[in-house]
Formats: sequence, structure tokens, C-alpha cells
Amino acid sequence: MAVRKTELVDVEEARRRCFAWAAPREAVRVPLVEAVGCYTARGPELPEDVPPFDRSLKDGYAVRAADTAGASDDAPVSLIVIEEVAAGGWPGRSVEPGTAVRTMTGAPVAPGADAVVPLENVRLPAGSSGRRGERIELTAPVQAGEEIQRRGDDLAQGSSPIGAGERIGPREAAVLATAGAWEIEVIRRLRVALLSTGDELLSGPGPLKPGQIRNSNGPMLAAMIRMEGWEVRDLGRCSDQVETVVRAVQGALESYDVVVTTGAVSVGDYDVVPHAMERLGLKMLFRKAAIRPGKPVTVGVRGDRIWFALPGNPASAFVTAHLFLLPTLRKMAGAKAWDPLRTTAVLSGRPSGGPIPLTRYWRAQAWLEEGRAVVDAGREQLSAAISSFLGANALVEVPPGQDPGVGDAVTVWWLDLPSAPIGY
Amino acid sequence: MAVRKTELVDVEEARRRCFAWAAPREAVRVPLVEAVGCYTARGPELPEDVPPFDRSLKDGYAVRAADTAGASDDAPVSLIVIEEVAAGGWPGRSVEPGTAVRTMTGAPVAPGADAVVPLENVRLPAGSSGRRGERIELTAPVQAGEEIQRRGDDLAQGSSPIGAGERIGPREAAVLATAGAWEIEVIRRLRVALLSTGDELLSGPGPLKPGQIRNSNGPMLAAMIRMEGWEVRDLGRCSDQVETVVRAVQGALESYDVVVTTGAVSVGDYDVVPHAMERLGLKMLFRKAAIRPGKPVTVGVRGDRIWFALPGNPASAFVTAHLFLLPTLRKMAGAKAWDPLRTTAVLSGRPSGGPIPLTRYWRAQAWLEEGRAVVDAGREQLSAAISSFLGANALVEVPPGQDPGVGDAVTVWWLDLPSAPIGY
Repeated sequence: MAVRKTELVDVEEARRRCFAWAAPREAVRVPLVEAVGCYTARGPELPEDVPPFDRSLKDGYAVRAADTAGASDDAPVSLIVIEEVAAGGWPGRSVEPGTAVRTMTGAPVAPGADAVVPLENVRLPAGSSGRRGERIELTAPVQAGEEIQRRGDDLAQGSSPIGAGERIGPREAAVLATAGAWEIEVIRRLRVALLSTGDELLSGPGPLKPGQIRNSNGPMLAAMIRMEGWEVRDLGRCSDQVETVVRAVQGALESYDVVVTTGAVSVGDYDVVPHAMERLGLKMLFRKAAIRPGKPVTVGVRGDRIWFALPGNPASAFVTAHLFLLPTLRKMAGAKAWDPLRTTAVLSGRPSGGPIPLTRYWRAQAWLEEGRAVVDAGREQLSAAISSFLGANALVEVPPGQDPGVGDAVTVWWLDLPSAPIGY
Repeated sequence: MAVRKTELVDVEEARRRCFAWAAPREAVRVPLVEAVGCYTARGPELPEDVPPFDRSLKDGYAVRAADTAGASDDAPVSLIVIEEVAAGGWPGRSVEPGTAVRTMTGAPVAPGADAVVPLENVRLPAGSSGRRGERIELTAPVQAGEEIQRRGDDLAQGSSPIGAGERIGPREAAVLATAGAWEIEVIRRLRVALLSTGDELLSGPGPLKPGQIRNSNGPMLAAMIRMEGWEVRDLGRCSDQVETVVRAVQGALESYDVVVTTGAVSVGDYDVVPHAMERLGLKMLFRKAAIRPGKPVTVGVRGDRIWFALPGNPASAFVTAHLFLLPTLRKMAGAKAWDPLRTTAVLSGRPSGGPIPLTRYWRAQAWLEEGRAVVDAGREQLSAAISSFLGANALVEVPPGQDPGVGDAVTVWWLDLPSAPIGY
């Protein structure tokens, strides 16, 4: 049986080729609320100072610090309240020596004042309620600047506290909204097409015919891509003949940034995907990586389009999606940091089997115990076992020739935060 | 100045009251692809075995193990190939003694066979290509069951490997799709209304008037809720008068599961939210929690609706959204584990200030260093500082009266996975 030999590419070299090729798509200007989940095209320059004026941090009185020098219980300083300013209001008068402006939290500090004395630090003379036209007494000196947040102190107009390639989430939305950046430039959402090849696959509902199995890769990849915030279209199943694959991928490459196929990398002795890539004029970034599972993974590009040909077996598709597909797509979507978090952890369980000359990736469960990362890869690692996915929030990376045991430090890729323990 | 005293509720007691009230919304039956991000209403019973038939794990030959007893290089066992079955095909004949069926990876194993011998372990006599009608030779005995995945071995029909309250992500989608669960019961997506109160707020674009500031809480909360996968409607701004708040919240409580207001918890000396809750016939779950920031947070319920009145200052809204709002909403959305992950970590930086009789929450940056959790809370913690949000993927919880120093172990709430370091 003649099996064509292909040189296996080291996993980091294969990933590097993907990342070297991947460039962010076009920038679009969108309302902030629509940018959630997208990556910034450039660091948005803040249009306004935050706060936009000197503002009081407390309910109190805006005063001149100089007026309060020497104030004490026995020798209080008496000031007359000349105005009241609520949040949203604007002072009409300046604080002159001997006067104060009642100023609520968030309200502008009147000109002339350089400190705010909180309500609770003010003494009211008999008969006074501390309102406009009445008197207040201060029994201690205050420092200039106290309880005032200066204009631009929090965020300065023209600054770019959020750089390029940052994902817009709740924190970024708050910062941008408060500084008036209601429209920002982000990289547009990717458009991804999925295609599952294999004559044995049933894609969609309906009864199985003898010998058929159901397509799990389409729904899995669709969920991954949707949760990243991109558009995904599952084109379903096509036969694993070169001709059919060429036709299906050709159409998809015209309408989508990314085509992801599963299966048909090779059928028996015949290399379907390499032939289809050649026919379509794609340049192969790499063909087969030195990993298990997922060895047949093949990636090709044409112009600004990319075709990820993932192996069809579920574990291989899962691992290669996390190693190659999602990081490359994040870079195309504009992300500055596109890889999942990789750390060391203590191995608490491992599957059977010995060292091999490939990099192994074990589906695993990682968590933090007393502040230390622990990972359990004790479950069945059979490529065909979909049940091994459940609870797998991490991959353990085992370099070629190595074979870590329980208690050893290993490299972990975190795919999700561990779940919290069940609540009340 | 008469300030009404309210008993502060311990943070865990306040959270417990929310969770005790929160019950999952209605279950709906939806196509699997639409269920992504939702929580299962019950553990879906798998309609089919996976695999649905005994299937070959390798390209090879289905044989009777008994036939191979005693096979060796010198005394090979010779079998005649009676049929070829590809993935998607179905064997038409049984394997009788002395015969084999050429069987590709994923193809059904013919009746009578109890093992598969991989292609590479088979010797071809001169002139044979191992196809139908030709002979193959085995040079070693094989064990019954080798290279066969039995029907139901991976996932058994009728089992429920995914329980109630699990979120549908890529892994769950793969498991359910492969077992034919193309429709499942999930808790429907929540509908959440946001309302920002405060006469000083400008909600939406347009120039600021003197004394106005921009609404950052609406965009922040909208992003949080959208990223959880729920529907959110930002109703914008309303004035912080009891009458206005009552009217706005009344309408929202009719159309939404959850109303979230920010600000107006109290205005000066007047308790707007408690009065509005009373007017609307809500039962208060708690009023003011013993925390900083976020002390004025107040939560009320009426029937199956809930109103979260978060304080208006951005840091308070941020912290109380993570402590109260999101966990309660996750429980209402059907989650079994609704709280963020909480672990210990080593404190590498801390803000100024000493112990207080409240539980403090510092916005912080947490990461893993050599497999150990480390957290830096060294940034400005001013409630009015929105810039303190940036990069804050964690909260450090400091119990009342405590004041941890650098190097101490502290409790950390993880809001996001730390970012990976920048790639190539």
C-alpha cells in the first residue's frame, strides 16, 4: 500500500505561518453599542475630558481653602452660602472670600473655590439649615484640592487609554462612552463558512440511514465562532470527492473570509484537500502538523481568503480549531493578543499511552486549588470519543518524546475559566 | 442634617436573598444551533447511541479474532477479502471463518467480525492489492475488540451526560448533535431593561451642556448583558424624581424580566428608590449592603420581576453588577453554577487606605505566574475613576476590618481569563 510521505510541520512553526499570513480585515466606523465583541482598529482618541469639569466628590460645600486656615472647634470659620448646585446644574456665581456654594456629589465646583467640605464636617449655627442665604461653620482647615476631581483627571481628552487590537467589552464601553466616543473604528466581524465533508455524514435532523453518523463538527464550530462574536454560516455536508469539494469551497471562498472544512483531508490513499487546494490555486501554508490528535490539518490561502481543512474526527477538529483556527481568526478580527492563555499547572491525572515523536494535546479539566493551577487529563483520549469533550476547559500540551506523570508541571492551554462551585 | 440610618446587610446575606428568590424562567424547545449561550432546562436524554453501530477505528480489515490465533511471520494466516466497506457504507455480508472485510475508518464492522486489523499490520501476498476477491495475510494474532468502537460506547442512548443548568457551548453542541439531539429544552433568554437616572446625565451622542456628564453605565451594562447572551434594551436616561422613576420602572417591569437602574438610590437626603419601590408594590430584598464601593445598592421584587437599583457612580455600578446582578440573572437564566470563580491569590500591589467596617472590593488585574494566581490591586480605587476599569479582570475581596498587604493571600473574583501575552 503506497502511503505518500509528507513532512510533518512542527506545531509552533505551523501556527507561525498562519499568524504571519493573517492580517486584520477592514476597519469600520460603528456606534459603540454595536462594537461589543469587536476589536479596536486603532486606539480611539478620547474626544472629551473626564470629568468634563472640576467636580465635587461629595455632597458638601465648595469653599476657598485659604478661608479655612486656623479654623477650630473654638474658633470656627463662618461662611455664607451664596448658591446651591446639584449634579447637572451649573454655578452662576463665584466663591469670594467668606462665601461657600452648596455643591452636591458630581456637581461642578464653582469658580473661586478650591476644595469641597463634606456635609458631615460642617457645623450649622442655630436656626440655619445650611441652605442658600444661611450660614455654615467650619471647625477645621481644609487643603486645596480636597474632594474635588479635576477636569480630565480621570481620562484626558486626546489620550488613547485603549490601544489598537483591544476587544470592546463592558469596561471598554464604559470608558469610551463616558469620554464621548460614541462611534469608534473596529475591525468588521469576520464571515465564516463551515462545510463538513464525508459521505457517511448526516447534517441536520432526520433519521440515520445504515452506516450514517451525525455531523457534530458543524454545530461545534458554529458555536465556537458565534461565541467569538462573528458571523457563521453552516453550509452543511458535501461529499468527499475532489470535484465536489472544489465546487463547494470555490463558492464559499468568494463570499466568506474563511472557509472551514472538516474531513476529507485524505480519503484512503488519496489526498483530497491538497488536490482541491491545487485546483483552486491556493498556496498551502502547511500540510500535516506533528501533533496528535489532528495530524492531517492542512491550511491554504488565496489572496485574503483562508481555508482551514481540519480533520473530520471530532477530537482532531476540536484540538486543531483551538490551536490554529481560533487564534488565526482572532488575529484577522484585529486582536492584539490572539492566543489562548498558556500557563504551567500540576498534572493530577493522565491518560494511558507512552511518549510519541509528536506533540500531544490531552483534553483536560483545569482549575485553581489554593491559588495553584491543577489540571486533570485522566479521561479517555480516544480521537473518536466525543464524550471526552465534556468539561474539557483546557488542553495539556505534551512535547514530542515527553511523558509527564501525575505531580509533574505541564503546559496548559486555558480554553475557558473553570466553573465556580455550585452556589446556594 | 438628618441622615436616615439603614441597617447595612452583609454582602453574602444580600446575595443569598437574591439567589433564594431567583428561579429559572420558562423552558423552551429550540433547535440546537439557536441554543448556543443558553442553559439547559433539564439534562437532555440522548435520542441515539454514539456511535450508532460498531465502527472501525482504523483503515483495515474486519476479521474474526479466533481466525488469527497462532499467526506469525513464519506461519501467517491467510484470509480472503469478501467485501469492501467505506465510511457511510453498510456491509452486505458476514465475516465467516477464513474471510475478511476491508473496512475503512468509521465504517461499520461487518457481522461475524470482532476485530479490525489496520492496513499497516497486514501482509499482501505477491500479486494481491488486498481488494475484494484477493487474499491478505496476518502475521500476528489479534484480540477480540481491537480497533472497534462498539455501538453506544462513546455515548449511550437514553443517558444524560449533560445535566440541567449547563450552558450550551461548542463542546455541548458537539455532544448533542452527534447523538441526534437537534432540538433541546433550554431556559429562554432573559429580557433586561436598563435605565440610567440623574438630571446631570446625557445618554447618547450630542454635545454636553454645562454641568452634564455622559452616561457610561448604560453602555457598560448593555455590553455585560449582551456578552452573557441575553436581550437588553437601554431605555436611556430618566430624571431622578420619584414620580418619573415610578412611571419609567412601572412600564419596564411589565415588558422585561429584569429592570436595572443606576443612580437615584438616594438624592441628597431623600430615598428615591425605596419610595419608588414602595409605590410600585415591590418587596425589598435588601437595602444597602455593607460593601465599598456600592453600599447604596437596593434590590426589590414583584411577582417574577426584579429591580436592581445600582448606585450611579461607575465603580459602584461595576462592582454591584458583578456581585449581585450577573449571578442572579444567570440563575434566572437557568445556570447551575451562577457565581464567578473565586479563588485565593497572592497580592502583588494594593491601593492606599486602611481597614474599614465594610467589605471592600478592589478592581484588580489577576494572572497566573508559574501556575500560581497573582493579583495586582495597585491602581487608583476612587469610585469616580472610570480609568480604573481598564484591564480589571478581577475583584479582590477584603473582609471588614482586614487590610491585606503585598505578599498576603487574598480572595479574588475572576471576571475574565487573563489575556495571553502578545503573540508573534
